[in-house]
Amino acid sequence: MSNLDATPVSAPGHLMAAEIAEQPQVWRRLLTEGLDPIRAAADRITRAAPRFAQLVARGTSDHAALYAKYLIEIRHGLPAGLVSPSTVTVYGAQPDLRDVLYIAVSQSGGSPDLVRSVEVARAQGALTVAVTNNAESDLAAAAEIHIDVLAGSERSVAATKSYTAELLALRLLLSGADEGGTEALPELGEAVLASGEQVREVAQRYRFAQRLITTARGYSYPTAREAALKLMETSYLSAQAFSGADLLHGPLATVDPQVPVLAIVPDGVGGQAMLPVLERLAERHADVFGVGAPAALAGLAGGIALPTVPDELSPLLEILPLQQLALHLALARGGDPDQPRGLRKVTETL
Amino acid sequence: MSNLDATPVSAPGHLMAAEIAEQPQVWRRLLTEGLDPIRAAADRITRAAPRFAQLVARGTSDHAALYAKYLIEIRHGLPAGLVSPSTVTVYGAQPDLRDVLYIAVSQSGGSPDLVRSVEVARAQGALTVAVTNNAESDLAAAAEIHIDVLAGSERSVAATKSYTAELLALRLLLSGADEGGTEALPELGEAVLASGEQVREVAQRYRFAQRLITTARGYSYPTAREAALKLMETSYLSAQAFSGADLLHGPLATVDPQVPVLAIVPDGVGGQAMLPVLERLAERHADVFGVGAPAALAGLAGGIALPTVPDELSPLLEILPLQQLALHLALARGGDPDQPRGLRKVTETL
Repeated sequence: MSNLDATPVSAPGHLMAAEIAEQPQVWRRLLTEGLDPIRAAADRITRAAPRFAQLVARGTSDHAALYAKYLIEIRHGLPAGLVSPSTVTVYGAQPDLRDVLYIAVSQSGGSPDLVRSVEVARAQGALTVAVTNNAESDLAAAAEIHIDVLAGSERSVAATKSYTAELLALRLLLSGADEGGTEALPELGEAVLASGEQVREVAQRYRFAQRLITTARGYSYPTAREAALKLMETSYLSAQAFSGADLLHGPLATVDPQVPVLAIVPDGVGGQAMLPVLERLAERHADVFGVGAPAALAGLAGGIALPTVPDELSPLLEILPLQQLALHLALARGGDPDQPRGLRKVTETL
Repeated sequence: MSNLDATPVSAPGHLMAAEIAEQPQVWRRLLTEGLDPIRAAADRITRAAPRFAQLVARGTSDHAALYAKYLIEIRHGLPAGLVSPSTVTVYGAQPDLRDVLYIAVSQSGGSPDLVRSVEVARAQGALTVAVTNNAESDLAAAAEIHIDVLAGSERSVAATKSYTAELLALRLLLSGADEGGTEALPELGEAVLASGEQVREVAQRYRFAQRLITTARGYSYPTAREAALKLMETSYLSAQAFSGADLLHGPLATVDPQVPVLAIVPDGVGGQAMLPVLERLAERHADVFGVGAPAALAGLAGGIALPTVPDELSPLLEILPLQQLALHLALARGGDPDQPRGLRKVTETL
């Protein structure tokens, strides 16, 4: 809570700063009182023996859903897909969802298109799970199983603590509540957050950037997506996320030394798979700032080193300095990330 | 072929111009000699009675795959997902793919990650289909069924004719080769392409734009994605595509009168679902240029009207003026869209 104490309550970004700082505490809560309900839900899923998974979400929660898609495909060997809600809400599709695990992820649990998607999925035979930060929400009521991510009330429009709470809840759910390595996360998260001053200086480098590219592969690709969204929401720049492979299939042409790149390169095979991408970026004389394994940061324009954790858990730590970057960049630009222009905390789409 | 005749062979963009102009002819070929093999493939899929579908692709072809995902979910009522190849190629996932229809889409059929993904999918029990523009490719050989999109050799790095050929082949494949409405497409395509001079003038408006947003919903969302990629590849601006709903969940904050928006608003329910999005954009005083139904263009900063066709077929026509826009903008900026900086025609990712 040190950031909260250091920032006057009325200052721009004080909510976002406080909620960023709160994350290790949220994770501790989920790893204690949150664990039994998640174990029960995981057992229920195991008994149902689904053969296919679908995930539905919007915005920040869509990146948590993407993380879950990787977990499901890699750990469970189940084919998985992200749902386009419009197929049901706009086109009236009635898919056959027997043997399907259908997971909706939403901080507020309030968007009508997600509620409707879950209602239809349940009627069509899916085992439905809602992962939300609001046990009283319509989405929680619509699904057969509800998992509360226990992040506490989130007031900043730019979501932070609910994102990593969703990641951790999904990781616990989709590993049968096997905690392997998760117990170390709160302390590691505190250590990463403690380098916030360094991030404040890094933000100065991007003070006048109008566009920016984020890139990663595998489990860390959702980090690239979420970092880009956070920068868009708070600092209004055009931030585009690409999987490292997709970047090479076209968008690389947009990269020159004037377009900053943020690369997430954790320890493990996902980070290793980024090395050929970093080579191609170097050929284009790109300005690449890295977040990840110390070894991968050598030769880049700059970097933030993260502690080593298993691949799957790395996204929880990677996003922390990137949330801080979005906060500090917004403040440096004179904005208020708690109240971005044009946005409301609960977005209702049909 | 009129664009080809009008442009000296050595001029920048002559390949892209010629390939854009060729599209109606490619569609005619697919609707005649291409039809029998597609019917046979559709019969084979029907007999297999898949319960889930997965699609794998990169770059432009990924947008054709996304179009197919909507078709499969809406017309066939099958849950479908886009594959992240890294789950197999980087993490070594071995998913259980019995009862899965697995479709790979690629112009060249040459990217090793797609070939490997199809090999693994086939070994894991999926019915595999490769949709390519090269019957001799490794991808065509790897899949149980190959569909040739018959676009002819594509030489411009910025793919155009192979994209709409992929859309049409997938539409024919996924409707059991029911041609409903497709026979009118070549003539309609010629009429749309004939307004190329208007697009050349429109391109002048974006001569100095550094960033741009494209948006659409449902079947037309792939159009927004492909238009953004084409503008990135040829004109190096930061072009971001959002589904209309996703735009409201965060990125709307980046929109102000200095950030141009291209909205695709066809006739039909997908275009109707864009109307609340256009309202929110108007609140932010956005500069919105429309492509689609004449009625939807009223009140926008400008627009290109398209002939009315069924929802599902609209993407084939919508992309034509947007391909022309990418071409003319690249030329106005002094670039050569046939040879974008940093790109190769066949991108090989692992």
